[in-house]
Amino acid sequence: NETIKAELGRSTWKVKKPSPFDFTSVLLRLTYVVFTLQLLHTMTARFPLEPTIEERTALKQWITLLSRLYPCGECAEHFQVLLKQYPPQTSSRDAASQWACSVHNKVNERLEKPMFDCSLVADMYQCGC
Amino acid sequence: NETIKAELGRSTWKVKKPSPFDFTSVLLRLTYVVFTLQLLHTMTARFPLEPTIEERTALKQWITLLSRLYPCGECAEHFQVLLKQYPPQTSSRDAASQWACSVHNKVNERLEKPMFDCSLVADMYQCGC
Ligand SMILES: Cc1cc2nc3c(=O)[nH]c(=O)nc-3n(C[C@H](O)[C@H](O)[C@H](O)COP(=O)(O)OP(=O)(O)OC[C@H]3O[C@@H](n4cnc5c(N)ncnc54)[C@H](O)[C@@H]3O)c2cc1C
Ligand SMILES: Cc1cc2nc3c(=O)[nH]c(=O)nc-3n(C[C@H](O)[C@H](O)[C@H](O)COP(=O)(O)OP(=O)(O)OC[C@H]3O[C@@H](n4cnc5c(N)ncnc54)[C@H](O)[C@@H]3O)c2cc1C
Repeated sequence: NETIKAELGRSTWKVKKPSPFDFTSVLLRLTYVVFTLQLLHTMTARFPLEPTIEERTALKQWITLLSRLYPCGECAEHFQVLLKQYPPQTSSRDAASQWACSVHNKVNERLEKPMFDCSLVADMYQCGC
Repeated sequence: NETIKAELGRSTWKVKKPSPFDFTSVLLRLTYVVFTLQLLHTMTARFPLEPTIEERTALKQWITLLSRLYPCGECAEHFQVLLKQYPPQTSSRDAASQWACSVHNKVNERLEKPMFDCSLVADMYQCGC
């Protein structure tokens, strides 16, 4: 935990140099991160209860690629550090969604936000899609 | 074009059976789709100008996996049909972002929305991330 905090702590979004576009770009960046986390929660909440090897590989690859392609350089780095310490769990819907919740909680911890109760995710991220 | 329209046209979001959760779930679904498209635009807008083979494969795989894992069954199907007809272009930032714009325009066309001017995407999706 200390290692992650130290590594993730190297840079934060709050110390970027100001520019005429800062307000919009900070908003956009936050929107992307929030939404990416929400997409991850919904995707894992609808992952098969008993996935095939192929489905497991697909989810793991998609998450790994997301952390490489993510448009915010800094978040991409944070993301990669987290994934290394907490590799995606894909053995079942439950494993995957609990994993996503616990990774999000690691971020909450670092930002000194309240921990989220992971027993709630199954109900919360059923979007009826 | 006619083929796509016919295939995509098989089902639309507007004919779902109503349920007490419909309003929220339709909102959530729209939010997910809008943001997924926005993520795609930002990601391609920040894709390397001259990507390596590895970076090209990463983007193509990520898009393909997204279309399989996408939490809305119906959108996932639409998405897969579109990708088959218009395979992701990854030879450069320009190719990738023009491809994303043209795929989004195919959806706009089907929904009878105005076409988007694809010469604007480079400026529009610089989020300063
Ligand atoms: C690797 C990484 C690094 C980040 N670094 C920073 C940073 O340095 N600075 C910064 O400001 N932001 C950072 N973020 C984004 C941060 O997680 C928040 O998304 C952002 O701060 C906005 O906060 P929020 O409370 O609006 O949204 P979120 O924290 O994304 O919360 C949105 C909603 O999700 C739900 N939720 C909360 N926790 C969980 C959970 N554990 N499981 C499931 N659902 C949950 C709650 O309903 C909440 O209202 C980072 C994200 C990642 C993935
Ligand atoms: C495969 C697929 C199938 C879909 N099927 C349906 C459906 O059946 N019914 C439905 O309601 N929605 C469908 N959508 C979603 C649809 O594309 C819209 O996202 C949604 O209808 C909300 O409309 P909007 O105008 O708010 O957002 P969007 O159309 O997503 O537009 C948001 C913003 O993006 C920008 N934009 C618009 N076009 C482009 C472009 N070509 N390139 C770059 N930027 C652009 C504009 O600034 C616009 O304001 C589908 C999406 C996909 C990918």
